[in-house]
Amino acid sequence: MNKVVDAPTPPYFAVIAPAELAEDVRGYPELATKLLELARHQPGFLGIESGFQQGFALAVSYWASLEAIDAWSANSRHMLAKEKGKSVWFRKYVTRIAKVERVY
Amino acid sequence: MNKVVDAPTPPYFAVIAPAELAEDVRGYPELATKLLELARHQPGFLGIESGFQQGFALAVSYWASLEAIDAWSANSRHMLAKEKGKSVWFRKYVTRIAKVERVY
Repeated sequence: MNKVVDAPTPPYFAVIAPAELAEDVRGYPELATKLLELARHQPGFLGIESGFQQGFALAVSYWASLEAIDAWSANSRHMLAKEKGKSVWFRKYVTRIAKVERVY
Repeated sequence: MNKVVDAPTPPYFAVIAPAELAEDVRGYPELATKLLELARHQPGFLGIESGFQQGFALAVSYWASLEAIDAWSANSRHMLAKEKGKSVWFRKYVTRIAKVERVY
Protein backbone atom coordinates (compact mmCIF):
# COMPACT_ATOMS: atom_id res chain seq x y z
CA MET A 1 0.00 0.00 0.00
CA ASN A 2 3.08 2.25 0.06
CA LYS A 3 4.26 1.37 -3.45
CA VAL A 4 3.17 2.74 -6.81
CA VAL A 5 0.86 0.08 -8.28
CA ASP A 6 2.07 -1.43 -11.55
CA ALA A 7 -1.24 -1.52 -13.36
CA PRO A 8 -1.71 -2.69 -16.94
CA THR A 9 -2.16 -0.31 -19.87
CA PRO A 10 -5.37 1.74 -19.53
CA PRO A 11 -8.29 1.68 -19.55
CA TYR A 12 -8.86 0.24 -16.08
CA PHE A 13 -10.86 1.48 -13.10
CA ALA A 14 -10.11 3.24 -9.83
CA VAL A 15 -12.08 3.41 -6.61
CA ILE A 16 -11.06 6.64 -4.87
CA ALA A 17 -12.05 6.54 -1.22
CA PRO A 18 -11.28 9.59 0.95
CA ALA A 19 -12.51 9.64 4.56
CA GLU A 20 -12.47 12.07 7.45
CA LEU A 21 -11.89 9.94 10.53
CA ALA A 22 -13.67 10.08 13.86
CA GLU A 23 -11.66 10.58 17.06
CA ASP A 24 -12.04 6.97 18.05
CA VAL A 25 -11.14 4.58 15.24
CA ARG A 26 -10.54 1.54 17.44
CA GLY A 27 -11.19 -1.59 15.44
CA TYR A 28 -10.86 0.11 12.07
CA PRO A 29 -7.23 -0.78 11.25
CA GLU A 30 -8.05 -4.45 11.84
CA LEU A 31 -11.09 -4.25 9.57
CA ALA A 32 -9.08 -2.39 6.91
CA THR A 33 -6.58 -5.24 6.92
CA LYS A 34 -9.39 -7.78 6.45
CA LEU A 35 -10.92 -5.72 3.63
CA LEU A 36 -7.54 -5.55 1.93
CA GLU A 37 -7.15 -9.32 2.17
CA LEU A 38 -10.62 -9.71 0.69
CA ALA A 39 -9.68 -7.39 -2.18
CA ARG A 40 -6.46 -9.28 -2.90
CA HIS A 41 -8.47 -12.45 -3.46
CA GLN A 42 -11.08 -10.74 -5.62
CA PRO A 43 -10.94 -11.32 -9.40
CA GLY A 44 -9.89 -8.20 -11.25
CA PHE A 45 -8.07 -6.56 -8.33
CA LEU A 46 -4.97 -4.75 -9.61
CA GLY A 47 -3.62 -3.10 -6.46
CA ILE A 48 -4.14 -0.36 -3.90
CA GLU A 49 -2.37 2.81 -2.83
CA SER A 50 -3.12 4.67 0.39
CA GLY A 51 -1.97 7.48 2.59
CA PHE A 52 -2.92 9.20 5.80
CA GLN A 53 -2.91 12.53 7.54
CA GLN A 54 -4.11 13.54 10.97
CA GLY A 55 -7.80 12.60 10.94
CA PHE A 56 -7.86 11.68 7.28
CA ALA A 57 -7.36 8.59 5.13
CA LEU A 58 -7.13 8.31 1.35
CA ALA A 59 -7.15 5.00 -0.51
CA VAL A 60 -7.21 4.32 -4.24
CA SER A 61 -7.75 0.75 -5.41
CA TYR A 62 -7.48 -0.33 -9.04
CA TRP A 63 -9.68 -2.83 -10.84
CA ALA A 64 -9.86 -4.48 -14.24
CA SER A 65 -13.57 -3.79 -14.73
CA LEU A 66 -16.69 -2.23 -13.21
CA GLU A 67 -18.02 -5.75 -12.66
CA ALA A 68 -15.00 -6.53 -10.48
CA ILE A 69 -15.71 -3.39 -8.44
CA ASP A 70 -19.37 -4.33 -8.01
CA ALA A 71 -18.45 -7.82 -6.79
CA TRP A 72 -15.86 -6.45 -4.36
CA SER A 73 -18.30 -3.81 -3.17
CA ALA A 74 -20.99 -6.38 -2.39
CA ASN A 75 -18.50 -8.55 -0.48
CA SER A 76 -17.10 -5.64 1.49
CA ARG A 77 -20.61 -4.47 2.41
CA HIS A 78 -21.28 -7.91 3.87
CA MET A 79 -18.10 -7.71 5.91
CA LEU A 80 -18.88 -4.17 7.07
CA ALA A 81 -22.41 -5.16 8.04
CA LYS A 82 -20.90 -7.58 10.54
CA GLU A 83 -18.74 -4.85 12.04
CA LYS A 84 -19.49 -1.46 13.56
CA GLY A 85 -19.59 0.08 10.11
CA LYS A 86 -18.20 3.14 8.46
CA SER A 87 -20.63 5.47 10.21
CA VAL A 88 -18.82 4.96 13.53
CA TRP A 89 -15.27 5.48 12.30
CA PHE A 90 -15.80 8.01 9.56
CA ARG A 91 -17.15 11.51 10.02
CA LYS A 92 -17.48 11.92 6.29
CA TYR A 93 -16.60 9.73 3.32
CA VAL A 94 -17.38 9.25 -0.32
CA THR A 95 -16.57 6.59 -2.89
CA ARG A 96 -15.70 7.80 -6.37
CA ILE A 97 -15.65 5.33 -9.25
CA ALA A 98 -13.37 6.49 -12.05
CA LYS A 99 -12.09 5.18 -15.35
CA VAL A 100 -8.33 5.58 -15.74
CA GLU A 101 -7.83 6.72 -19.31
CA ARG A 102 -4.22 7.86 -19.48
CA VAL A 103 -1.05 7.18 -17.50
CA TYR A 104 2.27 8.98 -17.87
CA MET B 1 -5.97 18.51 1.77
CA ASN B 2 -7.28 16.53 4.73
CA LYS B 3 -10.95 17.02 3.93
CA VAL B 4 -13.21 15.11 1.57
CA VAL B 5 -13.54 17.33 -1.51
CA ASP B 6 -17.08 18.47 -2.27
CA ALA B 7 -17.01 18.05 -6.02
CA PRO B 8 -19.96 18.66 -8.33
CA THR B 9 -22.08 15.88 -9.79
CA PRO B 10 -20.01 13.61 -12.10
CA PRO B 11 -18.58 13.44 -14.65
CA TYR B 12 -15.43 15.31 -13.67
CA PHE B 13 -11.77 14.33 -13.78
CA ALA B 14 -9.17 13.11 -11.30
CA VAL B 15 -5.40 13.23 -11.42
CA ILE B 16 -4.15 10.38 -9.26
CA ALA B 17 -0.49 10.88 -8.35
CA PRO B 18 1.24 8.24 -6.21
CA ALA B 19 4.97 8.61 -5.51
CA GLU B 20 7.64 6.61 -3.74
CA LEU B 21 9.84 9.20 -2.05
CA ALA B 22 13.62 9.38 -1.94
CA GLU B 23 15.43 9.48 1.42
CA ASP B 24 16.18 13.17 1.05
CA VAL B 25 13.11 15.20 0.13
CA ARG B 26 14.48 18.55 1.31
CA GLY B 27 12.81 21.31 -0.65
CA TYR B 28 9.88 19.19 -1.78
CA PRO B 29 7.30 20.23 0.84
CA GLU B 30 7.91 23.88 -0.09
CA LEU B 31 7.47 23.13 -3.78
CA ALA B 32 4.33 21.09 -3.09
CA THR B 33 2.87 24.11 -1.30
CA LYS B 34 3.64 26.32 -4.31
CA LEU B 35 2.14 23.77 -6.71
CA LEU B 36 -1.01 23.63 -4.61
CA GLU B 37 -1.30 27.42 -4.68
CA LEU B 38 -0.89 27.31 -8.45
CA ALA B 39 -3.63 24.68 -8.69
CA ARG B 40 -6.02 26.72 -6.54
CA HIS B 41 -5.76 29.60 -8.99
CA GLN B 42 -6.18 27.41 -12.04
CA PRO B 43 -9.56 27.48 -13.84
CA GLY B 44 -11.43 24.22 -13.40
CA PHE B 45 -9.69 23.15 -10.18
CA LEU B 46 -12.19 21.42 -7.87
CA GLY B 47 -10.00 20.36 -4.95
CA ILE B 48 -7.31 17.97 -3.77
CA GLU B 49 -7.01 15.14 -1.28
CA SER B 50 -3.71 13.70 -0.11
CA GLY B 51 -2.15 11.30 2.33
CA PHE B 52 1.25 9.98 3.31
CA GLN B 53 3.01 6.94 4.63
CA GLN B 54 6.66 6.34 5.39
CA GLY B 55 8.39 6.95 2.05
CA PHE B 56 5.16 7.33 0.10
CA ALA B 57 2.81 10.14 -0.94
CA LEU B 58 -0.59 9.90 -2.61
CA ALA B 59 -2.45 12.91 -3.99
CA VAL B 60 -5.70 13.05 -5.94
CA SER B 61 -6.72 16.37 -7.47
CA TYR B 62 -10.09 16.96 -9.14
CA TRP B 63 -10.75 18.99 -12.26
CA ALA B 64 -13.73 20.14 -14.31
CA SER B 65 -12.24 19.08 -17.65
CA LEU B 66 -9.25 17.51 -19.38
CA GLU B 67 -8.39 20.96 -20.76
CA ALA B 68 -8.10 22.27 -17.19
CA ILE B 69 -5.71 19.39 -16.39
CA ASP B 70 -3.59 20.10 -19.47
CA ALA B 71 -3.29 23.78 -18.56
CA TRP B 72 -2.37 22.98 -14.96
CA SER B 73 0.08 20.33 -16.11
CA ALA B 74 1.91 22.76 -18.43
CA ASN B 75 2.12 25.36 -15.66
CA SER B 76 3.37 22.88 -13.07
CA ARG B 77 6.01 21.59 -15.51
CA HIS B 78 7.33 25.14 -15.85
CA MET B 79 7.51 25.47 -12.10
CA LEU B 80 9.20 22.08 -11.71
CA ALA B 81 11.73 22.91 -14.42
CA LYS B 82 12.94 25.78 -12.25
CA GLU B 83 13.38 23.46 -9.29
CA LYS B 84 15.34 20.26 -8.73
CA GLY B 85 12.53 18.27 -10.27
CA LYS B 86 10.67 15.12 -9.45
CA SER B 87 13.57 12.86 -10.38
CA VAL B 88 15.48 13.96 -7.27
CA TRP B 89 12.70 13.57 -4.73
CA PHE B 90 10.80 10.64 -6.18
CA ARG B 91 12.16 7.15 -6.63
CA LYS B 92 9.13 6.20 -8.66
CA TYR B 93 5.95 8.02 -9.63
CA VAL B 94 3.15 7.92 -12.15
CA THR B 95 0.31 10.24 -13.05
CA ARG B 96 -3.03 8.63 -13.82
CA ILE B 97 -5.74 10.68 -15.52
CA ALA B 98 -9.20 9.33 -14.74
CA LYS B 99 -12.79 10.27 -15.43
CA VAL B 100 -14.97 10.13 -12.31
CA GLU B 101 -18.21 8.53 -13.45
CA ARG B 102 -20.06 7.68 -10.25
CA VAL B 103 -19.98 8.88 -6.66
CA TYR B 104 -21.82 7.33 -3.73
